[in-house]
Amino acid sequence: MGLPEITQFQQLVDQALAEDLGSGDVTTEALVPEIQQDKASIIAKARGVIAGVDIAKQVFLKVDLKLKIDILIEDGTEVKAADVISRIEGKTSSILKAERVALNFLQHLSGIASETARYVEAVKGLPVNITDTRKTTPGLRALEKYAVQIGGGKNHRMHLGDAILIKDNHLAALRNQGLSIKEVVARARQKSPPKLKIEIEVKTKKEAIEAAESGADIIMLDNMNLEDMRQAVQSIKGRALIEASGGINLEKVRAVAETGVDLISIGALTHSSKALDISLELD
Amino acid sequence: MGLPEITQFQQLVDQALAEDLGSGDVTTEALVPEIQQDKASIIAKARGVIAGVDIAKQVFLKVDLKLKIDILIEDGTEVKAADVISRIEGKTSSILKAERVALNFLQHLSGIASETARYVEAVKGLPVNITDTRKTTPGLRALEKYAVQIGGGKNHRMHLGDAILIKDNHLAALRNQGLSIKEVVARARQKSPPKLKIEIEVKTKKEAIEAAESGADIIMLDNMNLEDMRQAVQSIKGRALIEASGGINLEKVRAVAETGVDLISIGALTHSSKALDISLELD
Amino acid sequence: MGLPEITQFQQLVDQALAEDLGSGDVTTEALVPEIQQDKASIIAKARGVIAGVDIAKQVFLKVDLKLKIDILIEDGTEVKAADVISRIEGKTSSILKAERVALNFLQHLSGIASETARYVEAVKGLPVNITDTRKTTPGLRALEKYAVQIGGGKNHRMHLGDAILIKDNHLAALRNQGLSIKEVVARARQKSPPKLKIEIEVKTKKEAIEAAESGADIIMLDNMNLEDMRQAVQSIKGRALIEASGGINLEKVRAVAETGVDLISIGALTHSSKALDISLELD
Amino acid sequence: MGLPEITQFQQLVDQALAEDLGSGDVTTEALVPEIQQDKASIIAKARGVIAGVDIAKQVFLKVDLKLKIDILIEDGTEVKAADVISRIEGKTSSILKAERVALNFLQHLSGIASETARYVEAVKGLPVNITDTRKTTPGLRALEKYAVQIGGGKNHRMHLGDAILIKDNHLAALRNQGLSIKEVVARARQKSPPKLKIEIEVKTKKEAIEAAESGADIIMLDNMNLEDMRQAVQSIKGRALIEASGGINLEKVRAVAETGVDLISIGALTHSSKALDISLELD
Amino acid sequence: MGLPEITQFQQLVDQALAEDLGSGDVTTEALVPEIQQDKASIIAKARGVIAGVDIAKQVFLKVDLKLKIDILIEDGTEVKAADVISRIEGKTSSILKAERVALNFLQHLSGIASETARYVEAVKGLPVNITDTRKTTPGLRALEKYAVQIGGGKNHRMHLGDAILIKDNHLAALRNQGLSIKEVVARARQKSPPKLKIEIEVKTKKEAIEAAESGADIIMLDNMNLEDMRQAVQSIKGRALIEASGGINLEKVRAVAETGVDLISIGALTHSSKALDISLELD
Amino acid sequence: MGLPEITQFQQLVDQALAEDLGSGDVTTEALVPEIQQDKASIIAKARGVIAGVDIAKQVFLKVDLKLKIDILIEDGTEVKAADVISRIEGKTSSILKAERVALNFLQHLSGIASETARYVEAVKGLPVNITDTRKTTPGLRALEKYAVQIGGGKNHRMHLGDAILIKDNHLAALRNQGLSIKEVVARARQKSPPKLKIEIEVKTKKEAIEAAESGADIIMLDNMNLEDMRQAVQSIKGRALIEASGGINLEKVRAVAETGVDLISIGALTHSSKALDISLELD
Repeated sequence: MGLPEITQFQQLVDQALAEDLGSGDVTTEALVPEIQQDKASIIAKARGVIAGVDIAKQVFLKVDLKLKIDILIEDGTEVKAADVISRIEGKTSSILKAERVALNFLQHLSGIASETARYVEAVKGLPVNITDTRKTTPGLRALEKYAVQIGGGKNHRMHLGDAILIKDNHLAALRNQGLSIKEVVARARQKSPPKLKIEIEVKTKKEAIEAAESGADIIMLDNMNLEDMRQAVQSIKGRALIEASGGINLEKVRAVAETGVDLISIGALTHSSKALDISLELD
Repeated sequence: MGLPEITQFQQLVDQALAEDLGSGDVTTEALVPEIQQDKASIIAKARGVIAGVDIAKQVFLKVDLKLKIDILIEDGTEVKAADVISRIEGKTSSILKAERVALNFLQHLSGIASETARYVEAVKGLPVNITDTRKTTPGLRALEKYAVQIGGGKNHRMHLGDAILIKDNHLAALRNQGLSIKEVVARARQKSPPKLKIEIEVKTKKEAIEAAESGADIIMLDNMNLEDMRQAVQSIKGRALIEASGGINLEKVRAVAETGVDLISIGALTHSSKALDISLELD
Repeated sequence: MGLPEITQFQQLVDQALAEDLGSGDVTTEALVPEIQQDKASIIAKARGVIAGVDIAKQVFLKVDLKLKIDILIEDGTEVKAADVISRIEGKTSSILKAERVALNFLQHLSGIASETARYVEAVKGLPVNITDTRKTTPGLRALEKYAVQIGGGKNHRMHLGDAILIKDNHLAALRNQGLSIKEVVARARQKSPPKLKIEIEVKTKKEAIEAAESGADIIMLDNMNLEDMRQAVQSIKGRALIEASGGINLEKVRAVAETGVDLISIGALTHSSKALDISLELD
Repeated sequence: MGLPEITQFQQLVDQALAEDLGSGDVTTEALVPEIQQDKASIIAKARGVIAGVDIAKQVFLKVDLKLKIDILIEDGTEVKAADVISRIEGKTSSILKAERVALNFLQHLSGIASETARYVEAVKGLPVNITDTRKTTPGLRALEKYAVQIGGGKNHRMHLGDAILIKDNHLAALRNQGLSIKEVVARARQKSPPKLKIEIEVKTKKEAIEAAESGADIIMLDNMNLEDMRQAVQSIKGRALIEASGGINLEKVRAVAETGVDLISIGALTHSSKALDISLELD
Repeated sequence: MGLPEITQFQQLVDQALAEDLGSGDVTTEALVPEIQQDKASIIAKARGVIAGVDIAKQVFLKVDLKLKIDILIEDGTEVKAADVISRIEGKTSSILKAERVALNFLQHLSGIASETARYVEAVKGLPVNITDTRKTTPGLRALEKYAVQIGGGKNHRMHLGDAILIKDNHLAALRNQGLSIKEVVARARQKSPPKLKIEIEVKTKKEAIEAAESGADIIMLDNMNLEDMRQAVQSIKGRALIEASGGINLEKVRAVAETGVDLISIGALTHSSKALDISLELD
Repeated sequence: MGLPEITQFQQLVDQALAEDLGSGDVTTEALVPEIQQDKASIIAKARGVIAGVDIAKQVFLKVDLKLKIDILIEDGTEVKAADVISRIEGKTSSILKAERVALNFLQHLSGIASETARYVEAVKGLPVNITDTRKTTPGLRALEKYAVQIGGGKNHRMHLGDAILIKDNHLAALRNQGLSIKEVVARARQKSPPKLKIEIEVKTKKEAIEAAESGADIIMLDNMNLEDMRQAVQSIKGRALIEASGGINLEKVRAVAETGVDLISIGALTHSSKALDISLELD
């Protein structure tokens, strides 16, 4: 499961600490003796799925390599209020300096994992994957997409380079050339690296069928009503993966899944999830 | 109004573009001729307050310095669905490459500004400021706090270095020394730079009074019920700024304001606002 | 055609200039008056395909924004000795400071484009694509893969994240589990993002057939002799893209292409091409 | 022997890993269990001189600090096919993620060291040094110059700031002032830091003599034929170091050395060496 | 006491080493065997207060993690010539490579701490704080302000964002609006974050009184003579903190302190302190 | 004259602005209308030599590209109090935000140039160069060495890589091998790049003679008294450049120069110069 281990998160952790520490934690420096040691717990205050314990740990270690961090609950675990997620021991001043940044990561990612898990639960038993989109918070894409995985979702494109996705604005841009969907897909096939899949967004059943005949690998049904989706699926199932997209919320998601689509993509997973309530308490 | 102009956002824009462009926009490169020019509009799809038009513009210009961007609606303006926020003209491929990142910034910041504006509206006519907290998304603090300003809020601490804030965990850390609130505030005063204000978090009316007598500049009433808050305010008003904090939502905020506090701080402004729905459409 | 426009090359240009300028161009500073202006030409000294004129231009402009650079020969053009690639006018000292770094980029990338063009020429008329590999010079992958495109090749994976490629070392790692090729491909399909193609490396005709039946999107024939390749192609053609790989040089490439494979990947394009001889001369 | 230990290579290693890992090693993540451990060998597949084992090790450790790397063959050792260069033990997934980048460094640097060693061997027994030039791959200068040392060569200028080298373009730039070689060298001496040596490029025996009389520390004979070189050496030997440069290949290098020059500089060492064939195999 | 632990100094240490190592320590590499081990001492050559032992240690460890550094004298200790500040043991070449950069940090910061201590000594027994200003060396602010603390001073603003300070140029900018000091302070209060103190610079006793009545938190008496300062203090003492600023040197500082001001700010602490003489000697 | 133009100073300017702006110029933002325009002058308040007007200009332009900066006095000019160095016109808020950082650069560099000029003046008429050392402020080496040039000095080594300098600690490290000075110099010659000069530090006339016989290019007389220096010079003059070093101040420098040495190096130029008093005033 893919949390990239390398340098990118070190830089983000550095930035987050830099923006929070500013010219230093004046309160702690004024009040807490440098030599004081304490223990503390990170505690869930609400029900949800935890994501980000490793990056929270990295935050504490970045502030003070000698802190001892015990992770009691791994990413992907469902928690309820009062569950202890991890235990920290070491210099009190280090714990307090790292607290807010560590929680900010943990609450944000757990919020996304928890929301994803709600969608995954809602379609339980159906052969469909819940996926994210590129509608992520700037600078946090890899982490947010990791949180979606943790919540049980699958990742859609990480970035513009790992699949062809022909969207309405591409078709609008080509409109003067009078190309059919087949011709557009053929051009994409010819001009792009052979290793990449081709997906195309369609708005009607008729377009969906034409897309299937063009040899597209994935067909996205954009903002269709349930009946149109069902018919489109019946016509093209098995010839390409089928994705539903556009305005799908928790109330509607099971009905969409029942149309037989393979994928349901939800922008709100990453752009509108609420933080999960989590806090740190000194013993 | 304070959007810092300098380098920090260039770096964030670079990161956001890098994570979205990956190995290049293969779809656009395959389909859209390099020389094609188009016009496009950024359009609101829901009611809210816009924040971030300048950083969205920076995203477009980073991708292509020759794009022409007209900002029709400035930050702080209230919009409704279908309002055109800005107009873009230039190479089609550049517009499409920048689209998602520009919207990700604009939707996130406008979401925060819109939510802040709802709180500000809810306390209209009362002498109180709505403020944010340090519960921000890692890497985005300065932008998110800017969006709070745009929504009509005031900023609380930017980071740990610009005010003393003695919180429950600090008091817990000092518990073995048997210090009174007055002694804690006096120690903070003595050990910290004279230019900084001192704020202390209290949980009861009695503590609030002791804090006011200690000469603290700001007193935070943490998670008090309305009646206790009202009594605390009556006892200490005028001797220090009074801040209400903890679990305050849109339903409760006016009642809290009516207790007479000077500041109400809301973590959810920055950690749980939903993105405002905004899209880009080629003409 | 995809030279990513954004920040990554600015950083590389900065590094290359920094490593070449060190503590400053002491020779030019000692000898050439700051105000002197000159014209200069960048001239090919051998036959080849040019790649990198834009990044060379960026180098000159990074040193001195006021230099005037005319590009006479665009990337992808075939040149012979004495052809003038571009003309530069402005401060003599700026031209001399930028010269070596600009040429180092241009010679390296043109070397790759020229070598790629030789392979593409060698398979002319056959329905096959010449592709690169991940065997690139550290730090230069995007530029080198761009040069391969310029030479008429197609890019294989940009990085480990944009396609599944199951190689011999993966199979070796799985060996204790007694999985068939079909089971390995099925596991990869289930555990990876739906947007990605799956490629698998095989060493025999038998494995190739099993791979085709597994539903793999691309099958790599690794170091097979021509006869085995031909038979494998006959058995699986049309069910998946077929790639030949391993020790293929200019002498052998046409024979390999004639077996009917769809792709031929050549590591030497990026790790062993010779620089194209190009120089700068003041008028 | 000078591989600078500090931060510059960490950055290059980070970049190289970032460009190769992209959004993550999806193949390994899908197939290889996180907990699996393996042993692997890095094996030479051809004859050559190894350079870069330490940076290859750094690549593995950057991906996973817990990998155990045993270096069996140090930089500077001559290897033949099947020699085991180093042994790696630890998480299989870490080994596979680091493999390509580690090999890209090792193959590139060993290619340069091997080619340098061929030149050094060709002039064996003669009192001459083989040196590199500033014609290096952008971003890799320090490493490539290190590889030249490993192959038995000496470094020429690391960058424009560590010696005065008056080249043909400098003389062309001064041409309107009617200065003699002596006057040019005198001006360079007067206007530059006293700690630096002065080298000048000449094209004829006459110029070489004038340069020797000017007090230049090093005189570069540019593209002279063997007879002219021999005569120039006889005239100026002992008064300055003498360097031969320009179009010298493996066939010609011994004859050039026999003219009595002190240094022979070869651009091709760094811009046109082929990668040495090296691979990694799981046990 | 506030030396921020995090990343900012790693970057500065990296830069300082990069600019000093350049293309490598050629002298040490040529002369000192890689395997040689030595012991060395860092020794004070003059009387002063030490600051920066930790960052000097970081420099040594950055060059070679295996060096053993014993700090014998902690920051804030007063030393005299020949006192041994720390002892280093390990590879000789590592010690010599790190020497100059480590000393450059230590001498610069100890120079500032020593000068600050002289001012603090000069006002001994009086209820006044010596503070720094924003007149720091570019890139070194946090370290220099730390050195001021070590010398017994207090920090004034770290940057423009942690307090309101209305200076003469602000008043000059507002001059056309005919505002009184009270109106200026009121506007600042209303338009800025509630957490920040407000300071205003005044030039006369009359302005000082008006400032006190405006509710400013700190009043800066700029370049006043002693008698005016004394009268201003008498008029406003207790209503705001009072700061003296402008052209105050070691000779004058006690007289200024005796006027009763609370703070005396001295730009020269950070922009004109002499380095403390410290050297490194191999045993 | 060598102020490197490229990226390194952009980074330093960015850092300096970042550390000074922190979370934003709250005072200016609260008081000065965004649209207000003003003119301002940068004015010398004391006698000295100006250095750094270009980097000060870069600071202003980094904050606001539309500011108009007229440089009235170029680097290297001697000024007296009240001389106007440059004029700035544009947004008042931009001028005030950039003011302190621009002055910090300008005052620091002008302080060094002015101090250097005093030493150069003191040896006027004698054939000697005043040079700096590697005792520079961390992060500022290139700028400080530029300021030394501006003041009329010459640069010694920029970093450890651009000349061999065998110091007392190197000799101490070699002490067990019983090498003569000649043997040490010979080893350095053999093991280092031919392009580099070799300098050696000596403490007695006898060592100086031995060094001259060894063929060293530069001989540093360390902390010798005037009589010993004079005798050493008489013995070795013309065979190598001779440098005096160690504890030389303005009072002693002319006497040292009169001994006949070629170079006098002064660490205090860069580690202990006082800032030149310069201020910015709105019209």
